[in-house]
Amino acid sequence: MTIVYLAIACGVLAVVYGFFTSGQVLRAPAGDARMQDIAAAIQEGAKAYLGRQYITIAIVGVVVAVILLPTLGIYSTVGFLIGAVLSGVAGYVGMNISVRANVRTAEAARGSLQGGLTLAFRSGAITGMLVAGLGLLSIAGLFWYLVAVAGDAPNGRRVIDTLTALAFGASLISIFARLGGGIFTKAADVGADLVGKVEAGIPEDDPRNPAVIADNVGDNVGDCAGMAADLFETYVVTLGLTMVSIALLVQAPTEQLLALMALPLLVGGVCIITSIIGTYMVRLGKGQSIMGALYKGFWTTVILSVPAIWLASTYVLGDLSATIGSAGFLEPATDTLSTDFALGDTPGAVEATGASFNGWDLFWCMMIGLAVTGLLVWITEYYTGTNYRPVKSIAKASETGHGTNVIQGLAISLESTALPTLVIVVAVIATYQLAGIIGVAFAATSLLALAGMVVALDAYGPVTDNAGGIAEMAGMPDDVRQRTDALDAVGNTTKAVTKGYAIGSAALAALVLFGAYTTDLKEFFPELTVDFSLSNPYVIVGLLLGALLPYLFGAFGMTAVGRAAGHVVEDVREQFRSNPGIMAGTSRPNYARTVDIVTRAAIKEMIVPSLLPVVSPVAVYFIITWVAGQAQGFAALGAMLLGVIVSGLFVAISMTSGGGAWDNAKKYIEDGNHGGKGSEAHKAAVTGDTVGDPYKDTAGPAVNPMIKITNIVALLLLAALAGG
Amino acid sequence: MTIVYLAIACGVLAVVYGFFTSGQVLRAPAGDARMQDIAAAIQEGAKAYLGRQYITIAIVGVVVAVILLPTLGIYSTVGFLIGAVLSGVAGYVGMNISVRANVRTAEAARGSLQGGLTLAFRSGAITGMLVAGLGLLSIAGLFWYLVAVAGDAPNGRRVIDTLTALAFGASLISIFARLGGGIFTKAADVGADLVGKVEAGIPEDDPRNPAVIADNVGDNVGDCAGMAADLFETYVVTLGLTMVSIALLVQAPTEQLLALMALPLLVGGVCIITSIIGTYMVRLGKGQSIMGALYKGFWTTVILSVPAIWLASTYVLGDLSATIGSAGFLEPATDTLSTDFALGDTPGAVEATGASFNGWDLFWCMMIGLAVTGLLVWITEYYTGTNYRPVKSIAKASETGHGTNVIQGLAISLESTALPTLVIVVAVIATYQLAGIIGVAFAATSLLALAGMVVALDAYGPVTDNAGGIAEMAGMPDDVRQRTDALDAVGNTTKAVTKGYAIGSAALAALVLFGAYTTDLKEFFPELTVDFSLSNPYVIVGLLLGALLPYLFGAFGMTAVGRAAGHVVEDVREQFRSNPGIMAGTSRPNYARTVDIVTRAAIKEMIVPSLLPVVSPVAVYFIITWVAGQAQGFAALGAMLLGVIVSGLFVAISMTSGGGAWDNAKKYIEDGNHGGKGSEAHKAAVTGDTVGDPYKDTAGPAVNPMIKITNIVALLLLAALAGG
Repeated sequence: MTIVYLAIACGVLAVVYGFFTSGQVLRAPAGDARMQDIAAAIQEGAKAYLGRQYITIAIVGVVVAVILLPTLGIYSTVGFLIGAVLSGVAGYVGMNISVRANVRTAEAARGSLQGGLTLAFRSGAITGMLVAGLGLLSIAGLFWYLVAVAGDAPNGRRVIDTLTALAFGASLISIFARLGGGIFTKAADVGADLVGKVEAGIPEDDPRNPAVIADNVGDNVGDCAGMAADLFETYVVTLGLTMVSIALLVQAPTEQLLALMALPLLVGGVCIITSIIGTYMVRLGKGQSIMGALYKGFWTTVILSVPAIWLASTYVLGDLSATIGSAGFLEPATDTLSTDFALGDTPGAVEATGASFNGWDLFWCMMIGLAVTGLLVWITEYYTGTNYRPVKSIAKASETGHGTNVIQGLAISLESTALPTLVIVVAVIATYQLAGIIGVAFAATSLLALAGMVVALDAYGPVTDNAGGIAEMAGMPDDVRQRTDALDAVGNTTKAVTKGYAIGSAALAALVLFGAYTTDLKEFFPELTVDFSLSNPYVIVGLLLGALLPYLFGAFGMTAVGRAAGHVVEDVREQFRSNPGIMAGTSRPNYARTVDIVTRAAIKEMIVPSLLPVVSPVAVYFIITWVAGQAQGFAALGAMLLGVIVSGLFVAISMTSGGGAWDNAKKYIEDGNHGGKGSEAHKAAVTGDTVGDPYKDTAGPAVNPMIKITNIVALLLLAALAGG
Repeated sequence: MTIVYLAIACGVLAVVYGFFTSGQVLRAPAGDARMQDIAAAIQEGAKAYLGRQYITIAIVGVVVAVILLPTLGIYSTVGFLIGAVLSGVAGYVGMNISVRANVRTAEAARGSLQGGLTLAFRSGAITGMLVAGLGLLSIAGLFWYLVAVAGDAPNGRRVIDTLTALAFGASLISIFARLGGGIFTKAADVGADLVGKVEAGIPEDDPRNPAVIADNVGDNVGDCAGMAADLFETYVVTLGLTMVSIALLVQAPTEQLLALMALPLLVGGVCIITSIIGTYMVRLGKGQSIMGALYKGFWTTVILSVPAIWLASTYVLGDLSATIGSAGFLEPATDTLSTDFALGDTPGAVEATGASFNGWDLFWCMMIGLAVTGLLVWITEYYTGTNYRPVKSIAKASETGHGTNVIQGLAISLESTALPTLVIVVAVIATYQLAGIIGVAFAATSLLALAGMVVALDAYGPVTDNAGGIAEMAGMPDDVRQRTDALDAVGNTTKAVTKGYAIGSAALAALVLFGAYTTDLKEFFPELTVDFSLSNPYVIVGLLLGALLPYLFGAFGMTAVGRAAGHVVEDVREQFRSNPGIMAGTSRPNYARTVDIVTRAAIKEMIVPSLLPVVSPVAVYFIITWVAGQAQGFAALGAMLLGVIVSGLFVAISMTSGGGAWDNAKKYIEDGNHGGKGSEAHKAAVTGDTVGDPYKDTAGPAVNPMIKITNIVALLLLAALAGG
């Protein structure tokens, strides 16, 4: 239990860091009255939206809890509620800092670039540490309570179920938060542009536009709160499910099992420390490169994590070369093999991966996880950064018009899936060769252990975006706006990075989740023979239906943005009509009303798509069971879980990288290339950016929690069918 | 053998129909000298392109043949060459008729809408019947030679290998033809628009534009020749592989087996007759609805095919309620089941599907195939027709700009995958329940048996498109152009229909191909235990790598169009510069040079992407075998075959339906909605149309042959590894 206490201590440290740094941020000067006035409107709007969103989600949450209580029992229900509440808290607190840091960043940028960068990044770091800290505390706390207080075996069913329910709570909130926030931010953005720039002919971020506050609110509720909830979910699912799969798959003495299950917690803990150290390394060098400054922090964390993980492993496992238990999932190789071709008795290659592994194997798997993080960051930067071929090719294609810009953007978005897929494939093969499915799980764990740092990089984005908007609206000097713009351009890339990172981790986690599914199935329905072979047509059916989900979900998300933007347009038109003082600049528009309208639209639009991954697995199971029997129902359901990742990985990466590339192609042109601002090429690039908006900020990122929910619902369905 | 003779007779009938109808088309008046002049330029360009394309493909073909000869023997090599040559012939002859029918259609449209419709549709019907007829003749002829002349057993290895090689030849040609033609047509289209409309300010189809002939040539080499080669491939693969899977899977006395293998041929034969009858039913009714007229022909064919297939089945099988052999693929249910969970001995649901089936089961499977055809046609029309929500929603979104048009188009393209997937899933389940994998194969066969009619509907499109271009260039009266435009709008929908149909059949065929793969594997490597279960990470790796292929392929295709269009722009600029007489209208531009440049660009660009599906399966097998052993190499390869369809189905449908919807949204606006031609909404719709062009005519349709090639290369690799 000492290991768990250490992990809890690290989680507490992250929260303390959050409080401490919040103080620093809040003590910074908040600018003049005009700036504070604007910031207050944004704060008010963001709070109003999150309030309504959380009330809606709470209703769904209570309904789900009421269903869970009789089917899965009190522990699972409490786990679910903790996951749900903390996911909400991570988003809420992050947003709360973000809406205060924005105006302070604008004020700090008045002084220097470094000043703005420090403030914006610190604000991001608070969100990042809260995500990782609260995530770690929730898992470690629950595990501690169940094992140390309630006296469960570490691999007891109640531990497994409660951790799964915790993950479900986090995922359910996060899909609503991601999608609702994503619809809000893009509906406000597109709506404000349509009616402001196109119809009224006023510039972007003009305070006369009633939707301008909603647009800035959107950055906070979408890119900050939604993202934080999403990454909290990813963190909890990955670490929690790693523990669950150890419990399910490894056969070892209780003490060794307990240590092994606590290892992911300690790895998460030490990486919080390395992340905190990393945040202090974010400083501009001589070249004044903002990306370089952020990279300094990121790479510091990555490099320090190597010895930190080694120390944690040695502390937990002692001699790293001692063999650890045996992973039942791998153990008798012929046991997992289809006997379809078992005419001979050649053992097949699975056995070569070894039925057991040692500490070094796990350590190397975690190193592979770190390497995957680094590679995914680098690949995302390549595809979305302004210095490389992809973004430049889109900018160049803008010269010949809107159509060619979009064609090239789509080509890049399709292409951008290749390298991440290859990285993930190589990682799966290598980690599986080292330590089987447990190896894959540990790679996912070390990947996610850096979440604190990665979220910090991301959450920095909306702060600088808002800072730029406030600088514009408050009429601050041009050099301030230039500095915030420079900070913001880098934010576009870091935002894309987190999304690629989240979906990459989802691909690794999917394998682990499928392992948990099959193992649970074996435990709950020992008498059932389920055929997961690709030669079973119900497996194909499941794969196809799973693959359909991200497409349908994407279609819903894109359409929702269009529809919600329409409501914004109508409201703004009405405000201009009924109050001519707005355009004259003599009276203030009713910002809150627009915010309220986007709020209602976003919340209404988020419900159906969010329920899609909750309802689909249940529907597929029952329909296929009805047609072809329970064994095929489970086969189709299992295949669906993999279908959703096989297709979702590509849909999500292509949307988020493609969208980031379009955005930065516009920025690249605005920097004076291909004719610069106002040229025909710029107009075409604006079209690409608009197309990329719902791609990268609404539909794409929400695929990640969608994949998890589908998987976790399947696990809970199994438990419920088995009688709780 | 009588059955095979009957099938051959039907194939000959199709070819005779082609000759007879060609005569009718060629005897129609070809218009005045100006029209003939333009038509001659198109003919010349199309011939020049196809000539070069076929020389390039011939080189690849000879290289492949040289590899095949020592590895798979003379019969396979000859089968490969027959498939390759006939695929080429189907495309070449279709194109040859198309480039003659275009000008005659324009001339006939001078008289009446019915006149134009009749001519254009007859030209399409010639291509359609040649595709089905040559396809049927090649399979039936080879089967007859091997069984009746060379004395092989119907399920002998040589029959199986030769039919597979025939399919490979057809597929290899068709991917080059589809992609090369697709790049040609869209590079010319986009290039002509960019330099003509945007730079020089001359209208579309203006004879002063040196790229205008290339644009019209593109319709013929892409939408006609490429499409014909593609559907020839689909026909041969589906019917051929149905026979192969019967040979591999069904255990029955030789005579019964022979009859069963001949049934797909006879079904193909009788459906040629019903298709020919259908072509005579294409007449305008009182409402002058062109779509209605085409539907009359299509539905006549579908409805007549019901009794025709019943007659064919009864003739071949006698008593339809007698049990037929037993399909080894299903037979011992536990044999195909993973024993992962075989702790109990509950039989599982697979056994319920029955190890045997009777004639009625097969008949109903074929009825399901017909129903799928009808449903896919209807769904495609819904998503791409101007009368329904999807196209109207894109047109409406055009009012608010380029960005919202593209967003809505992408949303529709994502959404359009849902219904076809559900139809295919239901068909798979139903046919599998009726007669196992053989049932799925027979559904695919009856689906493809209507290819003659479906191709006729499609090949009609480029003829009317060209007729419109010729009418414009030759300065024919406005009412002629109006008639050809009306004919052309329907062509956009029918073109989309064929693509949805082809990819839908690919999804069914994929299951059959995977069955053939696993059965071959069992036969060639009886001592190897291959684990196709989803819990094998190498299966996940294969699925992910397979899923990547359509994305990478799509990226290549989209980029290729952009690059090739760039060459067109440069050439046209150069012609304008060096010969000022062109713009003045005093000298004729060098059409042939532009055609030649697009030709070279298209051929250069088609090679790498076309080789992707040939090389990838081989690479995956060898790399994974090297890492994890041969059993895992085969597992990853098998999973790759399904990964490519699981992702390719969605990529292809979203691209082809989305592209069709964008195109018709533009047409809908041009019909006077949302401001009509020249409005801001129209400009936005033009952007959407440009984006949709390479989506629907280059990348999307080429996914279908790509899927087949990946599968067939895997089958041939197995045979080659086993020593031929």
